[in-house]
Amino acid sequence: MAVPLTILTDPRDPAPRRTLALPPATSILKGAHAASIEITATCGGRGRCTSCRVKFVAGTVPPPTIMDEIQLGDDQVREGYRLSCQCVPGEAVTVQIAPPLEERAFQILGAGPGVVGMGNVTLDSGIRKQVVKVGLPREEHHQTSDLEQFAAALGVTPADVGLAVLQGLPGALRDDPAGVTVTTFAAAGGGERVLAVERGDTASMKFGLAVDIGTTSVVSVLIELESGEQLASVSSLNPQAVFGGDLMSRIAFAQFNPDNLKKLHTRIVGLLNQHIAEICRQSGVLAKWIYKVVVVGNTCMHHLLLGIDPSHVGLAPYAPVMRHALVLPARELFLKVAPEARVCLLPLVAGFVGADAVAVALATRIYESAEVRIAVDIGTNGEVLLGSRDRLWACSAPAGPALEGAQIRHGMRAALGAIDRVTVDDDVHVHTIGEADALGLCGSGLIDLLAGLLDASVIDWTGLIQVEGRAALPPKLSERVVMRGEERQVIILRPGEAGARAEIVLTQDDVRQVQLAKGAIASGVLMLQHVAGVPDARVAELMLAGGFGNYVSIASALRIGLIPPLPAERIRYVGNAAALGAQLCLVSETERQRAERVAARIEHVSLAAHPDFERIFVDAMNFPQPT
Amino acid sequence: MAVPLTILTDPRDPAPRRTLALPPATSILKGAHAASIEITATCGGRGRCTSCRVKFVAGTVPPPTIMDEIQLGDDQVREGYRLSCQCVPGEAVTVQIAPPLEERAFQILGAGPGVVGMGNVTLDSGIRKQVVKVGLPREEHHQTSDLEQFAAALGVTPADVGLAVLQGLPGALRDDPAGVTVTTFAAAGGGERVLAVERGDTASMKFGLAVDIGTTSVVSVLIELESGEQLASVSSLNPQAVFGGDLMSRIAFAQFNPDNLKKLHTRIVGLLNQHIAEICRQSGVLAKWIYKVVVVGNTCMHHLLLGIDPSHVGLAPYAPVMRHALVLPARELFLKVAPEARVCLLPLVAGFVGADAVAVALATRIYESAEVRIAVDIGTNGEVLLGSRDRLWACSAPAGPALEGAQIRHGMRAALGAIDRVTVDDDVHVHTIGEADALGLCGSGLIDLLAGLLDASVIDWTGLIQVEGRAALPPKLSERVVMRGEERQVIILRPGEAGARAEIVLTQDDVRQVQLAKGAIASGVLMLQHVAGVPDARVAELMLAGGFGNYVSIASALRIGLIPPLPAERIRYVGNAAALGAQLCLVSETERQRAERVAARIEHVSLAAHPDFERIFVDAMNFPQPT
Repeated sequence: MAVPLTILTDPRDPAPRRTLALPPATSILKGAHAASIEITATCGGRGRCTSCRVKFVAGTVPPPTIMDEIQLGDDQVREGYRLSCQCVPGEAVTVQIAPPLEERAFQILGAGPGVVGMGNVTLDSGIRKQVVKVGLPREEHHQTSDLEQFAAALGVTPADVGLAVLQGLPGALRDDPAGVTVTTFAAAGGGERVLAVERGDTASMKFGLAVDIGTTSVVSVLIELESGEQLASVSSLNPQAVFGGDLMSRIAFAQFNPDNLKKLHTRIVGLLNQHIAEICRQSGVLAKWIYKVVVVGNTCMHHLLLGIDPSHVGLAPYAPVMRHALVLPARELFLKVAPEARVCLLPLVAGFVGADAVAVALATRIYESAEVRIAVDIGTNGEVLLGSRDRLWACSAPAGPALEGAQIRHGMRAALGAIDRVTVDDDVHVHTIGEADALGLCGSGLIDLLAGLLDASVIDWTGLIQVEGRAALPPKLSERVVMRGEERQVIILRPGEAGARAEIVLTQDDVRQVQLAKGAIASGVLMLQHVAGVPDARVAELMLAGGFGNYVSIASALRIGLIPPLPAERIRYVGNAAALGAQLCLVSETERQRAERVAARIEHVSLAAHPDFERIFVDAMNFPQPT
Repeated sequence: MAVPLTILTDPRDPAPRRTLALPPATSILKGAHAASIEITATCGGRGRCTSCRVKFVAGTVPPPTIMDEIQLGDDQVREGYRLSCQCVPGEAVTVQIAPPLEERAFQILGAGPGVVGMGNVTLDSGIRKQVVKVGLPREEHHQTSDLEQFAAALGVTPADVGLAVLQGLPGALRDDPAGVTVTTFAAAGGGERVLAVERGDTASMKFGLAVDIGTTSVVSVLIELESGEQLASVSSLNPQAVFGGDLMSRIAFAQFNPDNLKKLHTRIVGLLNQHIAEICRQSGVLAKWIYKVVVVGNTCMHHLLLGIDPSHVGLAPYAPVMRHALVLPARELFLKVAPEARVCLLPLVAGFVGADAVAVALATRIYESAEVRIAVDIGTNGEVLLGSRDRLWACSAPAGPALEGAQIRHGMRAALGAIDRVTVDDDVHVHTIGEADALGLCGSGLIDLLAGLLDASVIDWTGLIQVEGRAALPPKLSERVVMRGEERQVIILRPGEAGARAEIVLTQDDVRQVQLAKGAIASGVLMLQHVAGVPDARVAELMLAGGFGNYVSIASALRIGLIPPLPAERIRYVGNAAALGAQLCLVSETERQRAERVAARIEHVSLAAHPDFERIFVDAMNFPQPT
């Protein structure tokens, strides 16, 4: 018997909906296609990708199939996502088509609506897999070798084949009469390298990893190189943080202490290997099929990953040890992907303007903009870019980890249960990621909260929580403002509200941390405008980037003075642009080569050395006063 | 008061002697020079080399100085060697000038006396050390990095500097105002690579390692690259031998068994690291000052060192996995020298004609000879070369390890206590290395012994020990020929002859092993002569090479039929030519480049595939009958 199926057809909007009668034993995907409802199915409905996933909005969510688990991973399965090609509902359900993941991977954060349109990127990862039939040495007088026969068949020279490949060559060549699958990498700069030789035909298994190593958070994304589709992603705290939350304390830990340097180095390599294992588990992809890795990060993270002593990055004149783009075999960094996989590190600009800033420039297309635009990458070591196709400036904005939820009493990363949206009227109202029980505050929630508390006069423009004046507040709000010992606090979530949930508070010190963070970023923007001679009126667009996980509210960012007071339509949140820049370089050697040209163009502005900086920074720590 | 000093002035001959009165507190070197006795002192008498070493022949050997221990090492110190520049005797002594070590390192085994003269080799190891002063980044607006400043000062590009060097760069650059010492390698084929950056001035510390990996024995030699002087050497049994004495059994052990392959690989890498540690201890050289390593070995040893599966080398058509010359960073092979040191592997010819044969061709200059010459490299996997500047043939001669003293009841390597010379008249007389108590028989002793026993009719031409006919022998000799159980034996050294020494015997099975070995080599020579159409009369010279440790007797080699019956003056023993070839490539990139051209010219002759081989081999197993 047919079951009623309602499909919400716009990924972002629950309004447009269609209801149809789904024949028995028919998948949602087939039913939708029969009714001419478009659901993308990149793999042809074989459960091999994630493009057809839907989210259950009403009705019983069916148990996940094995393909759901492999392709979507635990988190999405728990959030009610399923692959529509695998799902045959037995009762009336309502599902919403999800935004195709690959759209995020592909999107170049070009100038926003009203300025220029969005572009796409050509897929040319440099990684090529081909099935090759090699004529083996046949008789004793024939003076040749496996490698010579192989190189001749492939059109390369023996020197293009590394040791790790050679070690498996004789077995692979003789195992399957159909031939071997050879993976090569043709770097943008020229030269071809053989990365792997595999038995039989594995030509369709071709993956890459884009990694964004932040001071506080690390994000790894697995991408199918042929389609550019994002298959899985993992993010976690940078485990180096236990040795120092911000860059300077991390450098101080490593400074002139080889053992500590080694600790930092092995922690990040270990984490990347955990990410690789987890991402392979999620996606069902074998680690040996990952042939290219692109890593971005600030200069210090970059040096620590390579085991390079960053001591002098932390001392004037803050020069990096190296800046050029690097391509290394994975085995040299002990990354557990294909041993000869190429690990590409994007170039650096200065001691505190790293490959992440270059990646942001790349993803935002700021370097080709006709008008002046600003990109603000919010992170523990935030970076600001200002410019156009004519000139491009950058500075660091050492915000500290507050806006990533760290060093905040009840801060957390943007994960399940994080408060990501807050509104304040006569009380405080919260929304959490996955609508789960609230566990803490992430960056976007923190910014919303402060904006709301400022509007409600719970906090004054200097950042002081108004304990003395709380009587003037609406009763519910007033009750939340308390003194605990000597500390001013705002209680966001009371204990006992819904069972055993712990109390979540915002402390006076948390407010100060946010002030330091937003002061650093706002003064960075002001200084670049100052140096470049660009008043607010000439800023065509300000792009707010960062790994907040969910979109940060522009209104809230303006309210707390994180960014200059531009008209809201000239500001937009562009997501984790650094990670996106890494993904662009992963799927496109053209982009990776462009990164080098862009990096060479960026002019570094050193804030601390500028006579006007201190005054601007102190001013920027305060919150804007309502005009 | 002056002391009487007698100096035996010819390194090889105790006859020419001079006696002089050595003034008090005067070194032997100074005294000798004052008396116009020539003793080489490469370092100018500062205890920095070994060229002035003397051996104490009479009188009390003085306790070793620290320089004696560093430069000469335990073994030579124990044998009574001292540096004459450091030694001030307090009583009458007699010393013998030692053959300068560097003479061995330099010598090219060109055509023998009466054919062409000996040549020398130009020292151009490709390794260069220079003190460089680098202008560090000085101000914050200066967009540069340590590496860019360094590369500009040195005239290289950042990509020429590897990760292991980068890791130490910032510290080294800032540590010493005098500058840093930079080691570079300019390979013969072109391209320059930065191998190390060291604090201060270490420009005079520049060393290399030549390694000959044989199936049974491994020899490593440390060479000062500026002078070409040999500073120390270590040899030991190949620890892989416990998994199979000859190549075929070693390959069978590894065949299609990755765990066993790994065992063989780690054993040889582990041994080389032991050699490096020992050679550094002997010489006082730090391992980080070793920047170039040249390795030769047969194809199987070469593959196992690289961890390449040799399974198919042992199966028809016996093709190697690769043949080209390879240059790798030492860290990739986990060799504990400078991490970026270049490990150079010479090219291979075929599955059983390896880099060792190429090294022999190089060291003997056979490739440029106007007349046809033959080089016989005796080893477990022996190799024979025949040719001239016109054409060059090679074949393998799988002798087994007997002539290296292995798989012989009382066989041993040519080390202290090995019987290296034997004469047989009415009894058996032995000489041992270091004139120490006899511990066993090494290759040269074994060949002497069999030749003597053949002449004395203790063994007949088929190799049978004549137990039945022993009554016809002289009484002492007769007593030595015995039956033990079912085995025929010749007792070489009786127990109790000099205290607690163990019995040393030659068994019937030992004789058979030597017959197999010499049959393989002799038939290899015959086959090449056959294929090339070169009768004995056209052979201008036969060079007998091998790591016997001491010179093998040509007369004995002829007597047992190891080599064809040429006039003795056309035969000479040229020592360990493979190891010498490695040393040539270590001190000279010109030679290393030449090795590739020579390897490409060698025509491989496959014996087993030849219809006449079996007949020739069976004949060659017998001993020559006196004519």
